Amino acid sequence: MTGRLSIRGERLYQELEFLSRFGRYTDRRTGLEGVNRLALTAADGEGRRHVVGRMRALGLEVTVDRIGNVYARRPGRRADLAPVMVGSHIDSVETAGRFDGCLGVLGGLEIVRTLDEAGRETARPVVVAFFTDEEGCRFGTDMLGSAVATGRIPIETAYALRDRDGLDVQGELRAIGFLGDRPVALAPPHVYLECHIEQGPVLRSRGADVGIVTGVQAISWHDLTLVGRSAHAGTTPMGLRADPVAAAARIVLRLREMATRGRYGEGMRATVGSLVPRPGLVNVVAAEVTCTVDLRNPDDDAMRRAEADLIAYYAEVEREEGVRITWRQTARTSTVSFSPVVRERVRAAARDRGLAAEEIVSGAGHDAQEMARIGRAGMVFVPGEHDGISHNPREDSTPEQCERGVNVLLDVLLSFADEERS
Amino acid sequence: MTGRLSIRGERLYQELEFLSRFGRYTDRRTGLEGVNRLALTAADGEGRRHVVGRMRALGLEVTVDRIGNVYARRPGRRADLAPVMVGSHIDSVETAGRFDGCLGVLGGLEIVRTLDEAGRETARPVVVAFFTDEEGCRFGTDMLGSAVATGRIPIETAYALRDRDGLDVQGELRAIGFLGDRPVALAPPHVYLECHIEQGPVLRSRGADVGIVTGVQAISWHDLTLVGRSAHAGTTPMGLRADPVAAAARIVLRLREMATRGRYGEGMRATVGSLVPRPGLVNVVAAEVTCTVDLRNPDDDAMRRAEADLIAYYAEVEREEGVRITWRQTARTSTVSFSPVVRERVRAAARDRGLAAEEIVSGAGHDAQEMARIGRAGMVFVPGEHDGISHNPREDSTPEQCERGVNVLLDVLLSFADEERS
Repeated sequence: MTGRLSIRGERLYQELEFLSRFGRYTDRRTGLEGVNRLALTAADGEGRRHVVGRMRALGLEVTVDRIGNVYARRPGRRADLAPVMVGSHIDSVETAGRFDGCLGVLGGLEIVRTLDEAGRETARPVVVAFFTDEEGCRFGTDMLGSAVATGRIPIETAYALRDRDGLDVQGELRAIGFLGDRPVALAPPHVYLECHIEQGPVLRSRGADVGIVTGVQAISWHDLTLVGRSAHAGTTPMGLRADPVAAAARIVLRLREMATRGRYGEGMRATVGSLVPRPGLVNVVAAEVTCTVDLRNPDDDAMRRAEADLIAYYAEVEREEGVRITWRQTARTSTVSFSPVVRERVRAAARDRGLAAEEIVSGAGHDAQEMARIGRAGMVFVPGEHDGISHNPREDSTPEQCERGVNVLLDVLLSFADEERS
Repeated sequence: MTGRLSIRGERLYQELEFLSRFGRYTDRRTGLEGVNRLALTAADGEGRRHVVGRMRALGLEVTVDRIGNVYARRPGRRADLAPVMVGSHIDSVETAGRFDGCLGVLGGLEIVRTLDEAGRETARPVVVAFFTDEEGCRFGTDMLGSAVATGRIPIETAYALRDRDGLDVQGELRAIGFLGDRPVALAPPHVYLECHIEQGPVLRSRGADVGIVTGVQAISWHDLTLVGRSAHAGTTPMGLRADPVAAAARIVLRLREMATRGRYGEGMRATVGSLVPRPGLVNVVAAEVTCTVDLRNPDDDAMRRAEADLIAYYAEVEREEGVRITWRQTARTSTVSFSPVVRERVRAAARDRGLAAEEIVSGAGHDAQEMARIGRAGMVFVPGEHDGISHNPREDSTPEQCERGVNVLLDVLLSFADEERS
């Protein structure tokens, strides 16, 4: 047996820094540097070209499918065997840090680099992937690329999605040069592995070095429209108003109450991140509000109860406020359980490296949950600093934390990549 | 004594219709036609040129001052006497009807037309005025033109005001061709009179044909910034959040409670018309919210108490929500009382014409309240349809209602215009 391989953490960390230059901005309030690389923007295009350049520099064969997912293949001894795939995404929210998604993609490339330097062959091919628009902020549907690749969302549906300015996915893929020609349908890999920052405070609070991700919580997104009646702010008696801002405020506070009172479990999260009154003028009672609702729950039953109660509350507000409320579901996923085999190997790898590992349910959605629909999938979490804050320029993880997580990913990957039976 | 003069209501109504073509739009939801003639936009410029054309067609001498206020003068027999002035504004909110402001300006021109047709001279000159940016929606300060003309706001302060896109008042005045050369300081007229729609339900509910406006309620505007901490919506526990959307929702609902519980009098109004979370994404707890507060009260003491209690509530929310709240006052006027002489003459004119008149406090701010600072001023209100809804395409008033109000304005104007003592 040869000595155990390990990645070079400093090099990985530098690669994270390089990629963060695309879409970088300075937060005017804090002075912190953040990343704004919304899917299929010019900045995303530049980040993609940078990563593809890194893939080609490693001699990988790069293909792009019709939804812009990028796959980079390192051959194995047995071309007839399904590959081991590692991946994640490089698009970001508008106010992001350097780690979300990028750690999984650049971690995969660092593993390839490490194998190459050691002259280490594998029985199966190794594919490093990044998927289109995991965040869903711009076109309203998250995990878009992986959902198309695994058949949950038809490509025509994905192509027709539009952003706030009416620009559609297909046109924007073409505009940044990532409307590929490969069919989107993905053959199940031998296993899909993803390393990601936790984006929460749990691992740090438990003193864990890595997280063994057992699954992903359920997610439900609503787009709401509340139609009231615009009126003069100085003259219209309060009793004659149908104010959609007040109606939306009630929904904001009800959601928080639902998420904090424990009725739907301790794991419930609820957020109104976008809220737009129109016309939005100081002295006009608004005519209309559009807003979003983001619900999460690690328990499918509790999620269903919360959704039903929320929809009943929309009707209650509609009656009491005299506004008309319409809503549509823009995302809905049930809880996902990751492969017990992957979980066991993550546990074993951590133990062999002397790292403290903890089981954890993912609070965020990830491409791995889409991949779990077509085959074995699993994730390794890396703890973050500052209570695990994420979707924020303060998102942070140390070089050591990143190195440990990707080393566990390397061990698990090798354990699968040398399996010759399917 | 010659027979009593009366205006032609149908002609006035048609003039209101003509002016409403500038900035007209169709509300996509209701299909109703509304007016969007925000101050100093291209549409406002077109509306201004149309009205100036009407003034010149009546042979009036038109001057424009350095803040874009427009004055059209009909000579009197005694050029040495201060004129009687009638006026209002023609700028609008983004979702307006045809009457707000325009009735006062076009009513003034209809009075001049009526005097001309009857060959009726007056001892004093008659000036028809329209003032710049009464609404205050675009640059954040209402009654801007009349406040500059009467010395409350220095012209340098007015010039430097900027809209959301960073465009300033002086540049925008120049862009639409209304940066005049006349000094802004206005010599007190003999009296200032303004006819305006009520913009509320009171006159209709009391069966009144015209309103004798006793004064204007106090107005207080705040611009608020709530700074929280942006975070991942799926992972950040509710207890670790500092969510400025939830904090703003509490303020929205507290304001409504304050305005409905009677603690600050039955006349209190409170509105949050603009509320903008940033970054405003479905799966990101917002970093920051900016919003506006519009308070009105016909009682100065009650207004001061409401303001103090609101500011104390900001501090309470700041503590409890872990957000930082800063606010600035963007408008503040105390209650205004109109001239008892004008009120008496409005009452007498209504009586002589057999019209039902009711005293009323104005819920909205008007240019007349600025003019009241430098001399006698008063207003005539005309009832509106649909509970007096205003700042809305449904704003409506019948030809008869408009005719009655402007006829009362005509009578009062003539009673002052023939006074040769100052």
